[in-house]
Amino acid sequence: MKITCTQENLSYGLQVVSHVASKNVSLPILSNVLLKAEKGGLVLITTNLEIGLVCKVRGKVEQEGAITVQAKTLSDYVSLLPKENIELEIKDQALSVRSSKSKTNMKGMEATEFPLIPEVESKSKHFIKAKDLKEALTAVVFAVAFDETRPEISGVYFNFDKDILTLVSTDSYRLAEKKASLTKPSEKKSSVIVPIRTTQELIRILGEENDEVVVSGNENQIVFSLGDIKLTSRVIEGQYPDYQQIIPTEHKTRILVNTNEFINTIKRASLFCKPGSNDIELKFNQAAGEIEVTAANLQVGESEARQEAKIEGVDNDIVLNYRFLLDGLQNINDENCSLDINTNSNPGLLKPIKGEDYRYIIMPIKQ
Amino acid sequence: MKITCTQENLSYGLQVVSHVASKNVSLPILSNVLLKAEKGGLVLITTNLEIGLVCKVRGKVEQEGAITVQAKTLSDYVSLLPKENIELEIKDQALSVRSSKSKTNMKGMEATEFPLIPEVESKSKHFIKAKDLKEALTAVVFAVAFDETRPEISGVYFNFDKDILTLVSTDSYRLAEKKASLTKPSEKKSSVIVPIRTTQELIRILGEENDEVVVSGNENQIVFSLGDIKLTSRVIEGQYPDYQQIIPTEHKTRILVNTNEFINTIKRASLFCKPGSNDIELKFNQAAGEIEVTAANLQVGESEARQEAKIEGVDNDIVLNYRFLLDGLQNINDENCSLDINTNSNPGLLKPIKGEDYRYIIMPIKQ
Repeated sequence: MKITCTQENLSYGLQVVSHVASKNVSLPILSNVLLKAEKGGLVLITTNLEIGLVCKVRGKVEQEGAITVQAKTLSDYVSLLPKENIELEIKDQALSVRSSKSKTNMKGMEATEFPLIPEVESKSKHFIKAKDLKEALTAVVFAVAFDETRPEISGVYFNFDKDILTLVSTDSYRLAEKKASLTKPSEKKSSVIVPIRTTQELIRILGEENDEVVVSGNENQIVFSLGDIKLTSRVIEGQYPDYQQIIPTEHKTRILVNTNEFINTIKRASLFCKPGSNDIELKFNQAAGEIEVTAANLQVGESEARQEAKIEGVDNDIVLNYRFLLDGLQNINDENCSLDINTNSNPGLLKPIKGEDYRYIIMPIKQ
Repeated sequence: MKITCTQENLSYGLQVVSHVASKNVSLPILSNVLLKAEKGGLVLITTNLEIGLVCKVRGKVEQEGAITVQAKTLSDYVSLLPKENIELEIKDQALSVRSSKSKTNMKGMEATEFPLIPEVESKSKHFIKAKDLKEALTAVVFAVAFDETRPEISGVYFNFDKDILTLVSTDSYRLAEKKASLTKPSEKKSSVIVPIRTTQELIRILGEENDEVVVSGNENQIVFSLGDIKLTSRVIEGQYPDYQQIIPTEHKTRILVNTNEFINTIKRASLFCKPGSNDIELKFNQAAGEIEVTAANLQVGESEARQEAKIEGVDNDIVLNYRFLLDGLQNINDENCSLDINTNSNPGLLKPIKGEDYRYIIMPIKQ
């Protein structure tokens, strides 16, 4: 193998892929990146056996070949080189990295020992803008359950239907649903549960641009392709809960409130929660046009904050976990939001006032 | 006590002082802030028994009085209130904090139980711009020893002489010296060792402005006054080492090099240090006009970087701890720096090319 790339291209590619490589005691090669020089350039590959990440880097190939070396060390090293051409060559089972003023020889492991990234036979194809997918994932990923006993909710549910992608996450205490537009209508409905780690990698890789992401796959694997980057992941088997049935369709009280003011009011009250508890009490007073948020704690004191709001329907009250409420409020992409309440033992529904693209359901704390 | 302040003023004052308050099992009141309403406004006081911090906040006093409450909770609470007037009042041994939409009652502890901040009888007075003091402290504080067996080097040495303040720190492996201009000449020479924690608080409090800091004190205490803020600290007893004698006055080799390029070259080599070691080898080649930086590690590989430099004097070499070398280089406030070397067992001297206000001495690793 002998190939020349620019520092910018090589460093970008290594930064994209090296995050997935990680220390693995039983399979040390997983901390390596596979470099393959082939017609058209250099291919960089990493995997943690659940996710496979491939990035193509332009380069001038003098001799084809492949080797694996420690991903993080190579990525850090190349990022510190000046912006000039870098020559990569295999010498005595080591990777020689040369630029005008520096050279290094990195110990390698055989490319043939590196796990294969499966080629996925695609049964469906969907198209979405990178920034839209990133925004939608960010709005739901925090509510995924870290519960290994319920694997079907340990990922984000993707549902493609016509020109809409719906993402859903839940940990059974709250549920987030976000809709995003596809750039072309999907040929057929399909749905899949994507592991949380995969969605976190996607958020890291996806930029703020309008570049198109192609999502393809089958019942076992999903593939996200963005320009020269391809992320392949296993999907989670099982049936996602029929979440539509828990979304409240009616309400006794609807609260309309400024999102940021409400966030600050909740944060202030949270300082006075009982140690080890996240409970705050909300009372909705229609005549006064106010939410009263209270918390008390024997050691520190008590807090009572009134938040101006428009209350429609009956006076009402509910006890909520303030962290879960804040998680939802902080993902409302609107100056104002609405909160629908039935009784103090039924879930509340939080959403932006403008648009129906985000819904956040939160279970009350039973007193 | 009853007093009204603006949210901005109160929040600023609480943020300044609350950092010093911390949990203390044997003396719980140290996590509190003392609030004293007296003629002219509100005085906020915190202490950790080593440092006392006082900040005055403007306010309209209706009734004088004093109480202590948890500093961090009050500071967080006030920072989240909207920008409006806040009324503070003592009610039933609690502090009531009221604004138009919120009220809280915080449990208090008696003001009389709060440790006194000593009034310091000042024997000398010095004047310096806040940003100059901050910059000088930042350039030396990292090299202070965390060695309780040698208390005299566990702080920053301050030496006031005419219109120059010299700051020095060392952990016996390296030494940093920084000079800063005083705004008026000091009436008499004086020197003092200030604990590292105090200098860290100072860096936090001092802004980037030209406001004047007044430094006063005696053999036991030092006081830094900046506008409405006053920081009082004990000083460290003992004699600071006579550090002038270890500063090399001659050199066999002088290396002139671009500071940022040299930093990157050192960082690249550092990736190949032996596990648990920070040693890198530097060779200075006068004819080639190059520094050769090498490191090698059986697991990862080896690195050899050549860094363009002007070498004056004889060819030479030295082994250094790369972290210590980077610490010095990152505080060189100049595009280019010089490194003076004698033999591979004598200290090197690093300094900016422009000006003599910073000197950094680094001990070699003996092979």
